[in-house]
Amino acid sequence: MALQFELLSTRASGARRARIHLPHQTVETPVFMPVGTQGTVKAVQQSTLETIGPNQIGAQIILGNTYHLYLRPGHELIARLGGLHKFISWPRAMLTDSGGFQVFSLSDLRKISDEGVRFRSHLDGSSHMFTPEHSMDVQIALGADICMAFDECTEYPADEARARESLRYTLAWAARSLSHFRANQHRVPWHTEILQSDGALATQSLFGIVQGGMYPHLRRESAERLLELEHEGSGFDGFAIGGLSVGEPRELTRQVIAETLPYLPKDKPRYVMGVGYPDEIVEYARMGVDMMDCVIPTRAARHGLLFTNAEATGVARMNIKNRQYAEDKNPPDPSCICPTCSRYSRAYLRHLAQTGEPLGGILNSIHNLHFYLTTMANLRAELESA
Amino acid sequence: MALQFELLSTRASGARRARIHLPHQTVETPVFMPVGTQGTVKAVQQSTLETIGPNQIGAQIILGNTYHLYLRPGHELIARLGGLHKFISWPRAMLTDSGGFQVFSLSDLRKISDEGVRFRSHLDGSSHMFTPEHSMDVQIALGADICMAFDECTEYPADEARARESLRYTLAWAARSLSHFRANQHRVPWHTEILQSDGALATQSLFGIVQGGMYPHLRRESAERLLELEHEGSGFDGFAIGGLSVGEPRELTRQVIAETLPYLPKDKPRYVMGVGYPDEIVEYARMGVDMMDCVIPTRAARHGLLFTNAEATGVARMNIKNRQYAEDKNPPDPSCICPTCSRYSRAYLRHLAQTGEPLGGILNSIHNLHFYLTTMANLRAELESA
Ligand SMILES: [Zn+2]
Ligand SMILES: [Zn+2]
Repeated sequence: MALQFELLSTRASGARRARIHLPHQTVETPVFMPVGTQGTVKAVQQSTLETIGPNQIGAQIILGNTYHLYLRPGHELIARLGGLHKFISWPRAMLTDSGGFQVFSLSDLRKISDEGVRFRSHLDGSSHMFTPEHSMDVQIALGADICMAFDECTEYPADEARARESLRYTLAWAARSLSHFRANQHRVPWHTEILQSDGALATQSLFGIVQGGMYPHLRRESAERLLELEHEGSGFDGFAIGGLSVGEPRELTRQVIAETLPYLPKDKPRYVMGVGYPDEIVEYARMGVDMMDCVIPTRAARHGLLFTNAEATGVARMNIKNRQYAEDKNPPDPSCICPTCSRYSRAYLRHLAQTGEPLGGILNSIHNLHFYLTTMANLRAELESA
Repeated sequence: MALQFELLSTRASGARRARIHLPHQTVETPVFMPVGTQGTVKAVQQSTLETIGPNQIGAQIILGNTYHLYLRPGHELIARLGGLHKFISWPRAMLTDSGGFQVFSLSDLRKISDEGVRFRSHLDGSSHMFTPEHSMDVQIALGADICMAFDECTEYPADEARARESLRYTLAWAARSLSHFRANQHRVPWHTEILQSDGALATQSLFGIVQGGMYPHLRRESAERLLELEHEGSGFDGFAIGGLSVGEPRELTRQVIAETLPYLPKDKPRYVMGVGYPDEIVEYARMGVDMMDCVIPTRAARHGLLFTNAEATGVARMNIKNRQYAEDKNPPDPSCICPTCSRYSRAYLRHLAQTGEPLGGILNSIHNLHFYLTTMANLRAELESA
């Protein structure tokens, strides 16, 4: 059986407190999902990911990138080793994207047709074809708890004709993704290994992705058409809003989310892909989004940018490379209990950043991920209170 | 008071089991000291360094590099922040080199005179002068438990005239190092903070460095002359054999150590600088060396080279990038209990190495350091047994 979505409460604002029961983990939502592009959340050990955050709850679910793992080490190799969870030693929940967004990012190297996308590897220029069926096969081999339908991410800006054409691909590919997924999901490497509480075999889940550019009527059409899709009585297990954070102003991101959410079913998880800054993820969760992912906390960390608590605004940004921190004995965020803030000074982190030492990226990533996980845990507590 | 050297036992072979009581840590010897060039053992968190090795004893003492820390962030800044221990949050013992070896490595950018060495920074080409007095001032500001006399490291090969000239610098600088150190060691940032068990103030210690190239009679002369040096009744607190691992064949390294050890006092620590591979450090410890340091475990780790236990030879080398490990589910070393081998497969470590992910360097470094610390702990246990 696919995921069970347990909706605990809904605010008048639309904000939801829920649980997603997945084969490898029950995920408390709203949730932020750290990104593990190549089978590793960059520079952070799995044991650390399991223990950061408030009460050391750690990350409940992380992402893997289908495009990268398909190229290296290859999905078939990962399947032979038992799937991605075993390969990277991550026993909790995982989600894989469809590869569509990465291929979208290779705009010079790709060619789209009804069949799918032909693209050249960014590594060696070799030619590859991703179809909806192939994306499902790769994601089933990887074996994440949640897979994503193969979609075409509309660029920004795009005029309405282009957005409509792009949506046409996405809708056709969604139907093919769902059919192929349902017909082949028993091939997941852990097919007979995980039982649910009711004794049934646990299975992967598949999410559909709403596209439509920045056009509300296309977003509505996209959502409604996805909802109609099913394969032998079984539709998508959750819905994502894709095609955001592609260069549009943030106010537009918020607006598209607000205009799309009403067309998504209340009894399934809602996932906004690829966002965002700490204040953004709180804002979208307050609107009714359950799941979000983003590379910002780890990417910013590697560039010396730390997110910290600020009384007035909630979130402040600290560029630890700034000269003003050269002799600052304070922890990056005095209110933070993460392993980095518990032990190290701003002066030391600045030194590590200035010298390009790998420990700088490690310690900054730990803090930023702790900050994101804490932000969402605090929001969940707020949504639980009366 | 300087270090207390507690000699527990000596084998017929010369091998010693001892304790060095230092202000920040009692160090059990023979000991291997991980290198923390720029105030960090590359890619390894301090909390990890404190807990790897058998029985999670961790590293007892680590090195800092005077040349690098002088350039960035600067010794005066570190002193204002309380010294290197506080700056990097390492409460156990530390040793700093004199800067001489790093300057020696900048052969195109340096100029030697009786006064000292003028050199250009490898970072920005700026001109700097290291004299024995300046090296002592920098090392006192850094505040490591053990400092090293400023020496001139003789290159290999060097004819006898060149080795003798180099030794002349080293001996003259040793005398100036000792005088200046004794006269200024009260300036260490933690001068009044650490009491020994007898209630006296703990102080830094200074080691002399034996040079003389590959010439036994020069090595002997170097050792005997260093032993004569004192400042107001107080000589060096320990002795290092320097100028090795500079390109000479390994048999010659062993030979120079064997020919030099008899001229070093039995009641002070003996330190061979910059060695070596796991089998080398065991061999030298069996000859009577107490302390060694080397970048090999962490540098090799970043290149995917792991040291593992082998029945026949004691140590094997595993290049984790090799194709043969692509689907190997075994831990790197099945006999190893380190955090890496306890959790991850060769296949995953190979993937991390192939993709250049920072986690690869982290996990490999943890294993190799654990291997080195375990190697020395096993040797200490062997030396304790009847
Ligand atoms: Zn923190
Ligand atoms: Zn190991």
